[in-house]
Amino acid sequence: MSEQIPHIGALPAGPRNSISDVAGVRVGHCTLDQGAIQTGVTVIAPHGGNLFTHKLPAGVAVINGFGKSAGLVQLEELGTLESPIALSNTFAVGTLLTAQIRHAIARNPECARSLPTVNAVVLECNDGYLNDQQALAVQAAHFEAAWQALSQDVAQGAIGAGRGMSSFGLKGGIGTASRCVRIGRAATSYTVGALVLSNFGRLPELIVAGDALGRRLAAQAAEAACADEQNAPEKGSIIMILATDAPLDARQLKRLASRAGAGLARTGSVYGHGSGDIALAFSTAQQIDADAEQITLSLLADAVLDPLFHAAADSVEQAILHALFAAETVRGRDGHVRRSLREALAALPSL
Amino acid sequence: MSEQIPHIGALPAGPRNSISDVAGVRVGHCTLDQGAIQTGVTVIAPHGGNLFTHKLPAGVAVINGFGKSAGLVQLEELGTLESPIALSNTFAVGTLLTAQIRHAIARNPECARSLPTVNAVVLECNDGYLNDQQALAVQAAHFEAAWQALSQDVAQGAIGAGRGMSSFGLKGGIGTASRCVRIGRAATSYTVGALVLSNFGRLPELIVAGDALGRRLAAQAAEAACADEQNAPEKGSIIMILATDAPLDARQLKRLASRAGAGLARTGSVYGHGSGDIALAFSTAQQIDADAEQITLSLLADAVLDPLFHAAADSVEQAILHALFAAETVRGRDGHVRRSLREALAALPSL
Amino acid sequence: MSEQIPHIGALPAGPRNSISDVAGVRVGHCTLDQGAIQTGVTVIAPHGGNLFTHKLPAGVAVINGFGKSAGLVQLEELGTLESPIALSNTFAVGTLLTAQIRHAIARNPECARSLPTVNAVVLECNDGYLNDQQALAVQAAHFEAAWQALSQDVAQGAIGAGRGMSSFGLKGGIGTASRCVRIGRAATSYTVGALVLSNFGRLPELIVAGDALGRRLAAQAAEAACADEQNAPEKGSIIMILATDAPLDARQLKRLASRAGAGLARTGSVYGHGSGDIALAFSTAQQIDADAEQITLSLLADAVLDPLFHAAADSVEQAILHALFAAETVRGRDGHVRRSLREALAALPSL
Amino acid sequence: MSEQIPHIGALPAGPRNSISDVAGVRVGHCTLDQGAIQTGVTVIAPHGGNLFTHKLPAGVAVINGFGKSAGLVQLEELGTLESPIALSNTFAVGTLLTAQIRHAIARNPECARSLPTVNAVVLECNDGYLNDQQALAVQAAHFEAAWQALSQDVAQGAIGAGRGMSSFGLKGGIGTASRCVRIGRAATSYTVGALVLSNFGRLPELIVAGDALGRRLAAQAAEAACADEQNAPEKGSIIMILATDAPLDARQLKRLASRAGAGLARTGSVYGHGSGDIALAFSTAQQIDADAEQITLSLLADAVLDPLFHAAADSVEQAILHALFAAETVRGRDGHVRRSLREALAALPSL
Repeated sequence: MSEQIPHIGALPAGPRNSISDVAGVRVGHCTLDQGAIQTGVTVIAPHGGNLFTHKLPAGVAVINGFGKSAGLVQLEELGTLESPIALSNTFAVGTLLTAQIRHAIARNPECARSLPTVNAVVLECNDGYLNDQQALAVQAAHFEAAWQALSQDVAQGAIGAGRGMSSFGLKGGIGTASRCVRIGRAATSYTVGALVLSNFGRLPELIVAGDALGRRLAAQAAEAACADEQNAPEKGSIIMILATDAPLDARQLKRLASRAGAGLARTGSVYGHGSGDIALAFSTAQQIDADAEQITLSLLADAVLDPLFHAAADSVEQAILHALFAAETVRGRDGHVRRSLREALAALPSL
Repeated sequence: MSEQIPHIGALPAGPRNSISDVAGVRVGHCTLDQGAIQTGVTVIAPHGGNLFTHKLPAGVAVINGFGKSAGLVQLEELGTLESPIALSNTFAVGTLLTAQIRHAIARNPECARSLPTVNAVVLECNDGYLNDQQALAVQAAHFEAAWQALSQDVAQGAIGAGRGMSSFGLKGGIGTASRCVRIGRAATSYTVGALVLSNFGRLPELIVAGDALGRRLAAQAAEAACADEQNAPEKGSIIMILATDAPLDARQLKRLASRAGAGLARTGSVYGHGSGDIALAFSTAQQIDADAEQITLSLLADAVLDPLFHAAADSVEQAILHALFAAETVRGRDGHVRRSLREALAALPSL
Repeated sequence: MSEQIPHIGALPAGPRNSISDVAGVRVGHCTLDQGAIQTGVTVIAPHGGNLFTHKLPAGVAVINGFGKSAGLVQLEELGTLESPIALSNTFAVGTLLTAQIRHAIARNPECARSLPTVNAVVLECNDGYLNDQQALAVQAAHFEAAWQALSQDVAQGAIGAGRGMSSFGLKGGIGTASRCVRIGRAATSYTVGALVLSNFGRLPELIVAGDALGRRLAAQAAEAACADEQNAPEKGSIIMILATDAPLDARQLKRLASRAGAGLARTGSVYGHGSGDIALAFSTAQQIDADAEQITLSLLADAVLDPLFHAAADSVEQAILHALFAAETVRGRDGHVRRSLREALAALPSL
Repeated sequence: MSEQIPHIGALPAGPRNSISDVAGVRVGHCTLDQGAIQTGVTVIAPHGGNLFTHKLPAGVAVINGFGKSAGLVQLEELGTLESPIALSNTFAVGTLLTAQIRHAIARNPECARSLPTVNAVVLECNDGYLNDQQALAVQAAHFEAAWQALSQDVAQGAIGAGRGMSSFGLKGGIGTASRCVRIGRAATSYTVGALVLSNFGRLPELIVAGDALGRRLAAQAAEAACADEQNAPEKGSIIMILATDAPLDARQLKRLASRAGAGLARTGSVYGHGSGDIALAFSTAQQIDADAEQITLSLLADAVLDPLFHAAADSVEQAILHALFAAETVRGRDGHVRRSLREALAALPSL
């Protein structure tokens, strides 16, 4: 295995190989890196305007529901995303929910008065191996800092919400990727972008582009007596965000989201009991005006969606690899360390 | 309509006609009543021990998902309740989630370390007509105050989380009730208890024990020019908690929870678009030890559940009436007032 | 209780007070009435064209899933109805599935060749009290006979699939009704129509327009020693079909379908364990061309759907009453008899 | 790629590497092979007794719902399997439903009389490329023939329901496999067995044990001008049946079933739009007596299920490979041919 990250699948990536290849999507990070505090916040802005007044069609697939995310019940009922998406550690959900509410009020002064309350979406993984979650270190200001940092340039690895995450007994975190497809007789171009918060998997199970690399790494870890790395039980989770400019409605986006599970499986996951595996997909193609009484949607037919399904699976698999290859080794609470994949690869006997 | 509250259905109530007729269940309130702040917290303790180490089987029915409750995804996946149930206004969910997390850490120091994180359940309704939700008045201390106030004596009406709630254009809030059934050839006794946070409905739609009382009240309100009362759009919600000592598993409790919707419908609700109507049911009959690798459950057969289904519907309908009859008139933000049902009844021409 | 059937709710009925008030919807019956064979087939044609090439948006709510209906899995995934709707007894589902397949092949010779297979919808209730289901009397020809009988004039009661059905220990069967609403600032008119196959309920539980009539009827039945009538256990089911000309998509139609449960509850049902309570809603406003790669849908916003939700609940409740009031007394297998509601009312002491 | 079929994963197979390694499970086939009729019936008997009186806990995962299977609604509601499982082509579902009903009546004369109706499970894939589905060739007698052929020796490939199925543009069909695990501190042994009806996938997407073999085969097919093989659009489906002797309840079996999707993904599937991908899992550990009012279940804790999840994914992936490697080349309607994988491999340039 060289330093080169393999390209997953037959579809081409977008120019950034990032969720921000979907026009309008930006990502911001705020990272907390102080001894036992190894955590952070990542915010995804699905478009540049006001989500509360101009919602996007969205769907969720709960692949394994051992998770504490907020905002999914209403998203399922109404099929719309009306807030930015915030990612962090499990114990930060409450704080970020309140931060999102303040954020929405600031932009919509009639929220919870003449207008409805806002359905804020906050997704999480458990970074407790490296991060002292009991410290409840994430504050509202960290949400705002991540918001201020929104950019089309998406940093990856041990950053933002990914700071303390582990994957396959190695260092996980934030990864992103994209795929471009052509649909139908007119061969119209669309992009699917994925961003993952990768915090799942046991080392022996890691598959990189079809190669069961994890078994070799686990053998090496066993020799090196890295018991934590080798045998870390699955207590992880993965959050998979899919953006697309293809015109899809909520039902179709739920279908798209469920294909994230195929990409996830190809990295070695069997959706472990303790892993909250959740995918959320939104389409930027059409905004839903909160004031409108009638809405016109132009939608792709379900029969032509297969290229998008491949793009969803491939970009998720690719984003997971990006997270692993980008993440640096991190030392956190109680002397716990997660090695980077690159460091682990370097320790392998020559291949 | 006399001052007498009608008894719903053919089943007898328990001694308290309260959710606390299910042995071990206690309820505590903390009420905030200061001008524009008309809100509060209600906590339900499903048993007297540590829920995180001794979980209860539980199920949820999302009857209409326009709601922002937390903790339901994992509850659906694993079928267990592992925290007390906290109720409040919509914008307090984040704060209460964090309060619940601190509460769990205090009792389980290894939570999010060697043990998993806790799945805290927080349910909400929008009390924005009377309460200034933007003030984010609910604090962690209010959760602890409600916890300290746990009791088998369950106060009802404009109290705790019910302080600012509206129902049918009148004052809503907390209501509770219970029903006793006998199951099977052995006629074994079981109890179902309901507690509702009632914040739904438009006045003309109110049905009290089969009587379309709301139409008469709306006519009177029209004469009295109470436009808000008469035409308040449905922006409410109702949370319906069901407890039972019948030995049921998560699948069966989900079935039980869905019957809350039948009781709700009989009060006039059609599960309005803007009403987050959510029912959660748990069984106290058997605790699930978090450390056990094998669990033995003794369960009722589905074929004998009908009496429990009636008890669920009847106790929810009864609890809604209790909330309406117990709630006092409340004046809140911007001079908004919700009259009590009793006051509205008194204003009716003699029947 | 006079002979007059009460009007449910505040909304006006359409000109026929029938599902056929939704333009294009037609219904046909084929009735089998020969001794122990008391059953039949009812077919609903959602529009006058070819459903397989011009599908309709549709959604399903499984209120209680003790049922053996066919076609719901794909309808849930794709959100479209692509066959007529066939109703009959439980053991006729297989025969009608094959009949529907032949029917589709005859109109679409490439079905299952160059075109996909057809997803035929067949819904059922258990009419085994009156009808000898083991005789498997329903044949493909009965489906075609019902199809040939399609009409906007919808006969009700002990006819078609309703021939052998029981409701509240009395004779049930087919009922239909409609409600008209005005939506939004433009007050645009829409119609919701319901057709039910009513086969649920125990006599003491019957509520007619808020009046707990069933208790009085059960008392009378007890005196008259009609034990079967009085105590018939809930082994029923109800199928509730909703049609509307309002422009809704599959997600919204699923929401509409779930409101059938509110109307059902107001007649006394708590969705008994043994009752397969299933609602299916479709919209005739826009057809989905099976060949199209792109589809444009004009949709009502969710925020304005409440009048339609009321119309769904009211028309279902009304249709159940229509079934009860229209059904004649029927004698079936082994001397079993179900009295009509009118006959039972006539036996009541004067009110 | 040698003739040797790779072993998937780290877990050992059972003695037969078959679903029948789960004690009591037997499988029977009836194959129709006459010109344009290339189809059949496969029956799985989950235990040797009467399923209607002694049901098994069961759960379903609808991974992609483009399918016409029967019996899943009730299975989801009640969590029990009460009939054998019949597999065949899409247009045979109705006939097999009726055959199953007759089968149940013959063994339970009070079915649909004093006892409830039976919920028969029939699952299907579209074998229309090779088989003339419009001929409706499958008859009730074929179900009985498959039933009479029940055996622990499970033939694989182009046999029974698998006769006309295609997979990855090659010949698909029936495959089976098993995996053995040890659970918990006591290292108790359990077995998971899978049987698939494999009819999904496009050739370029085939992955065999991590090797993207399909791309090479597609390149070879392109040279050989096998356009149908190379570009066959996804119109398939896969049915995945999981049996286990581990003591699990319906909720846990639904979790187990969803892990079939991980194994499926590892063979190259992204759950294509037109592929009805459905998994059904049952446990033989405990029978549910239909007459009992109270049931005692001994269950594994969810926290120890991960080995079973691996076993489910691995045995499904293995069973798909078994189907591909076992299936012979078949010629069907209109001169359509599906080559066997072995034949395709033999045509590859030496590796």
